[in-house]
Amino acid sequence: MAGVRLGVAEAGIRYAARADLTVMVVPEGSTAAGVFTRNQCPGAPVDWCRAALKATGGRARAVVVNAGNANVFTGRAGDEAAAATARAMAALIGSQPEEVLIASTGTIGEKLPYDRITAALPALYVGLDAAWPDAARGIMTTDTYPKAATRTALIGDVEVRITGIAKGSGMIAPDMATMLCFVFTDAAIPAPLLQAMLSRGAKRSFNCITVDSDTSTSDTVLLIATGQAKHARVREDDKKLIRGFRTALDSLLLDLALQVVRDGEGAQRLIRVDVAGAVSKKSAHRIALSIANSPLVKTAIAGGDANWGRIVMAVGKAGEPADRDRLGIAIGGVWMARDGELVPGYDEAPVAEHMRGQEVQIRVELGLGDGQATAWTCDLTHGYIDINGSYRS
Amino acid sequence: MAGVRLGVAEAGIRYAARADLTVMVVPEGSTAAGVFTRNQCPGAPVDWCRAALKATGGRARAVVVNAGNANVFTGRAGDEAAAATARAMAALIGSQPEEVLIASTGTIGEKLPYDRITAALPALYVGLDAAWPDAARGIMTTDTYPKAATRTALIGDVEVRITGIAKGSGMIAPDMATMLCFVFTDAAIPAPLLQAMLSRGAKRSFNCITVDSDTSTSDTVLLIATGQAKHARVREDDKKLIRGFRTALDSLLLDLALQVVRDGEGAQRLIRVDVAGAVSKKSAHRIALSIANSPLVKTAIAGGDANWGRIVMAVGKAGEPADRDRLGIAIGGVWMARDGELVPGYDEAPVAEHMRGQEVQIRVELGLGDGQATAWTCDLTHGYIDINGSYRS
Repeated sequence: MAGVRLGVAEAGIRYAARADLTVMVVPEGSTAAGVFTRNQCPGAPVDWCRAALKATGGRARAVVVNAGNANVFTGRAGDEAAAATARAMAALIGSQPEEVLIASTGTIGEKLPYDRITAALPALYVGLDAAWPDAARGIMTTDTYPKAATRTALIGDVEVRITGIAKGSGMIAPDMATMLCFVFTDAAIPAPLLQAMLSRGAKRSFNCITVDSDTSTSDTVLLIATGQAKHARVREDDKKLIRGFRTALDSLLLDLALQVVRDGEGAQRLIRVDVAGAVSKKSAHRIALSIANSPLVKTAIAGGDANWGRIVMAVGKAGEPADRDRLGIAIGGVWMARDGELVPGYDEAPVAEHMRGQEVQIRVELGLGDGQATAWTCDLTHGYIDINGSYRS
Repeated sequence: MAGVRLGVAEAGIRYAARADLTVMVVPEGSTAAGVFTRNQCPGAPVDWCRAALKATGGRARAVVVNAGNANVFTGRAGDEAAAATARAMAALIGSQPEEVLIASTGTIGEKLPYDRITAALPALYVGLDAAWPDAARGIMTTDTYPKAATRTALIGDVEVRITGIAKGSGMIAPDMATMLCFVFTDAAIPAPLLQAMLSRGAKRSFNCITVDSDTSTSDTVLLIATGQAKHARVREDDKKLIRGFRTALDSLLLDLALQVVRDGEGAQRLIRVDVAGAVSKKSAHRIALSIANSPLVKTAIAGGDANWGRIVMAVGKAGEPADRDRLGIAIGGVWMARDGELVPGYDEAPVAEHMRGQEVQIRVELGLGDGQATAWTCDLTHGYIDINGSYRS
């Protein structure tokens, strides 16, 4: 993409002989927006980014990402590691340190050996010739595949491009469900508008996915606009001119979010949960996530069991208004229960067939109002236990 | 225990050749209290008990419990099954149907073949010679052992007895974490006081345990006082006379709650989480449960991994006030982190040794206030996936 230069290196932060340091450099004048974890104990890089975006009013010149160590719960040394990384990168590109955004992912609670990052940056900066797939691979931890997506949109009659990469496969839960996601566009968009579009898009994508209900301390989504495309000037309040861009951005964010949840640790199936008929959209969202987070629902699906009783349980435990005798449940488009009872003559065979596939669709009708929402998750398998019982070893 | 007669039978509700029907009969004049699930889609037996206790003002003559089918999400037929069971038992003992309390546990969403229960009751009622361990076994589903406890206390100078049985090992989460628990005493205690003591005791026991964050539709704790012990009359407001009884009841409820969590589906270890220094007791309770419910914490412990970084994550995701730089974490009495950083010279060896044991103790110090709370859970293992991926098959 015009204006974005990528570099990937093996800094040896934790892994041997694999890329673990990724930099993304953008031209002067680029605007930036960010959405971050709501975890109350965020990592030092999240604190850094929040403060930096505030200090610059939404400008950026580079993003530095390391895998292998999340630089979380590392005390003052963690703040210093983030600042030192930003200062080293800023010195190379001739920017303020606050124009360098930082993200780290990996083990929590161990001091980040940031000298390995600062030592690797100069050689990395000379090259900056990596491709998007390389960058997507450089930010991976337990991910089983790199995640990237691209879209185009028209601003006026000029085509602009949006490209994003993401990583994440565990400790994924709303709000702000992804681990790390970096999206770039060559459009020229004022920072406040960029932030508003990113916040809205994240709400409809990353905030609707969950792998295990655990919320990372490091979740970061950045959106950076380089302004290299020569389209008509976008004013902050110009919703019409930006409509196509916004739609493309929403689509790209959802695409990346679903790539993350498909790669949920140990996941064999993508599960889509549609809730309708709730008293409000918010209520529907909570019920959808209650189902998507239920270990009993997720293990049943892993076992190929169309156990709609557990879906009833998960609806009820959400604490939202629900009437047992109005509840309807469908799996794979087949209504198993309506008005609180098993559908007469219900045949489990087509549902069992649907559940052998890669994607399982659950639909819940509450019969109370107009509230609708969708959540995505994955099944809970032995693989999750394997991965997380021995992550550090 | 004086006044309580027990009966157990094989009614063939779901299982072949195992006890699945349990009745507990108490004399006229017995008082009763109940605490039930907060799931918004409760089973028909829970609806029945709530209404019955309200109608009688806290009287009971019998409890009928079946395993194998939870009679949940079975529509009007479910209400009728509960009522018909109560009517059949009431006819045998010559009471009102509302003096018969009902509980069902097992699969959700299948119609309860209650004719098998009503057909088995007359023969069962003739015997009523079962022992407590038989009753404890009769209410089991995926439990691997029967759960019972007994205490004595003085009311004035008369010794009274409290005995309880419980079942439950999955779909265990606050609030109201147990599946089923039935506690009897030969003390004579007015119903409102009995209810107050049970509500308080459940809050400190069953509401502090979690296996998998899923809240059953059937959770029921009943406390029935037969009044057979000849102690001084207990008035509703006589806190002093009842103090010893209350302490014994609290102890018994916690004992049963811990038996439930130790038997968590697939559990290898009991995990105790103590949180101190929170801004309030409520905040401490939420943080303790956030840790106890975290799949990443529970899988780490299953893997013998002293992964305190995940504990930090779980503290932060509770959404309660927390300051990363004041946080302290100990496992097995060894402080790994203080003031947001790894303790210098921290030696993981004794912690790893502690984690090989049957009980893992996690202590979190927030350094913000006086709020304290304790939660109990179990580790998350392959066994949980095995049990729940094929529960119905």
